[in-house]
Amino acid sequence: MKQIYKHRQSARLAPHPGEPTTGPLTAEELQLAVRNHSMPLEALRRDLTPPGLHYVLTHFDIPDTDAAPWHLQVKGAVERSLELNLAALKRDPAITVPVTLECAGNGRSLLKPRPLSQPWVLEGVGTAEWTGVPLAYLLAKARVLPGAVEVVFTGADAGIQGGVRQQYARSLPIREALRPDVVLAYKMNGSDLPPQHGYPLRLVVPGWYGMASVKWLQSIDVVTVPFEGFQQKVAYKYQDNADDAGVPVSRIRIRSLMVPPGIPDFFYRKRVLPHGPVMLQGRAWSGEGAVTAVEVGIDGQWVTAHLEKPAGPFAWCKWTLPWVADPGEHELSCRATDSTGATQPLAQNWNYQGMGNNVAQRVSVTVE
Amino acid sequence: MKQIYKHRQSARLAPHPGEPTTGPLTAEELQLAVRNHSMPLEALRRDLTPPGLHYVLTHFDIPDTDAAPWHLQVKGAVERSLELNLAALKRDPAITVPVTLECAGNGRSLLKPRPLSQPWVLEGVGTAEWTGVPLAYLLAKARVLPGAVEVVFTGADAGIQGGVRQQYARSLPIREALRPDVVLAYKMNGSDLPPQHGYPLRLVVPGWYGMASVKWLQSIDVVTVPFEGFQQKVAYKYQDNADDAGVPVSRIRIRSLMVPPGIPDFFYRKRVLPHGPVMLQGRAWSGEGAVTAVEVGIDGQWVTAHLEKPAGPFAWCKWTLPWVADPGEHELSCRATDSTGATQPLAQNWNYQGMGNNVAQRVSVTVE
Repeated sequence: MKQIYKHRQSARLAPHPGEPTTGPLTAEELQLAVRNHSMPLEALRRDLTPPGLHYVLTHFDIPDTDAAPWHLQVKGAVERSLELNLAALKRDPAITVPVTLECAGNGRSLLKPRPLSQPWVLEGVGTAEWTGVPLAYLLAKARVLPGAVEVVFTGADAGIQGGVRQQYARSLPIREALRPDVVLAYKMNGSDLPPQHGYPLRLVVPGWYGMASVKWLQSIDVVTVPFEGFQQKVAYKYQDNADDAGVPVSRIRIRSLMVPPGIPDFFYRKRVLPHGPVMLQGRAWSGEGAVTAVEVGIDGQWVTAHLEKPAGPFAWCKWTLPWVADPGEHELSCRATDSTGATQPLAQNWNYQGMGNNVAQRVSVTVE
Repeated sequence: MKQIYKHRQSARLAPHPGEPTTGPLTAEELQLAVRNHSMPLEALRRDLTPPGLHYVLTHFDIPDTDAAPWHLQVKGAVERSLELNLAALKRDPAITVPVTLECAGNGRSLLKPRPLSQPWVLEGVGTAEWTGVPLAYLLAKARVLPGAVEVVFTGADAGIQGGVRQQYARSLPIREALRPDVVLAYKMNGSDLPPQHGYPLRLVVPGWYGMASVKWLQSIDVVTVPFEGFQQKVAYKYQDNADDAGVPVSRIRIRSLMVPPGIPDFFYRKRVLPHGPVMLQGRAWSGEGAVTAVEVGIDGQWVTAHLEKPAGPFAWCKWTLPWVADPGEHELSCRATDSTGATQPLAQNWNYQGMGNNVAQRVSVTVE
């Protein structure tokens, strides 16, 4: 656990990434907020999020993958290593999967104390159709050897995090890697991947938080011992504190969001709408099971919303609820439940890295 | 000046949008930073910025322009009012113009004291090829009447700013509106406009800061008295203080930016690179004249960079400078000069709304 040791040693520096704070927002958090894009909530109206509105988190820089010839390596505990360029990959059978991706740290800036990292508010989410080769197909072609336990995915993006120099890399347990819907995607919503979404190739793991869907993919390495890279062993853990070994972050927790109704104030983003009938709407998703219910809170009274069928098992579903808005101040909210019985909490459970937040959204509105 | 009065009256509220502060970053600024997208500086490598990396500022919500049939009105002091749908516009002659757009408030968060508004760092910029009908062609079709002084452009985006309920609207002096390169664009980089860039139609005013390029365009109104809307009369002014009538913001001031070399630290974004030769590169642009020189500062010593020819008079030009990096800590900088003789300042001139910032960028690097 050399990385964790390094990580904790640097706790004397201020501001220290990862260390929770009750202090004001830092210049470092603002710099991350302007680099990483979130999805304006009015884009919840759309079944598919256009590339420029889909959330993006890049740990390091967007690599210059146009500059050099690219190929993908499949290696490690396989009978037959592969080296494929994009043209070869495009000759393999392709699938298209609609997937809602959410950043595991979405909502972090609302925590108290607030872990110092990418300061998401609510909007680190998006849904796209990803087209490419099923990972299972490629692994079958390479013939995974007995004893394989995980598959490691390494991207071209390089940098330093927690004092560790690294290329971004994450692993999946072999059983997840062999799921038929895990895709090596070269298209997003029918077009070539945009640079910030992993051009020329990325992994998409339906149902898992976004950190699993490695972008700018360079190599796929089948391993016989669990991967211990920084993004697996140190980052993306549910921890109570810095000393807690923690539980790995994996599937997306049940969540719903609402399109804030009416019009906004530029600076405060407070909402104003005329009295009378208004159709409240939003989306709900879970990586752990189907969404079974969405309730909308109107001044604390919960009403069941109408749910539409999603485009696929890992795509968000639309919900609607007609509301007759009376003049005055109102607080709207929404919370979803999935087939495992999990429901969004009304107060956020805190964890040290600010992962897996799914508290029910609250929207204050003034009805005229 | 009813709007200005309202604006100043609300100065008792805290935080007050527009009022400069020396306090910490506010939750309202973070909310704006996550809504509005800036261009990661590594995208300076590209001649054209892909839609999802180009900067976006939306004062209010992205309007739901898919929902209803759309048409454009051309009216006011014209012989013949026009009402055109998108198909009709696409039958008119089209031009394609490469244009660098920058937000007038770019760099605002670095000011001390800091005006409370969209907290840009450095990256509120982007370059695209915009395709559409020359505005001058449409105005000629409508036949502008003598006595016309300005043309008012109104978007579909609505909200409240400075206490004033409004649809976003800006005007151009008639002589600017009749320039042959001002375009009513329905394509960005060869594709339909993305929702956040003004689908189905936007104005693009080459050389002017982005506020002039009204998105989600609904109407074009030729007027015989100067327009006094909020975004013209109150916002987008160079003011010394709240009581200063100020000077309207118009053309983009000379500026250059650099692709930070090496690899970043995730949180601090500090740069690390190996010693030896490295090609420093970036872009420079000005709305006031051609870029005539870029100088790169290496530990305070200024060296002239190589300039490439831009794609057009209002598109940024690429600059490069080979550097042999010695081990140690270095400060890199860049500053450009245009054909009017204007050069980027080394310390930022302050103004009340935080407009037109163009201080030379500084990048600290550690060479190993």
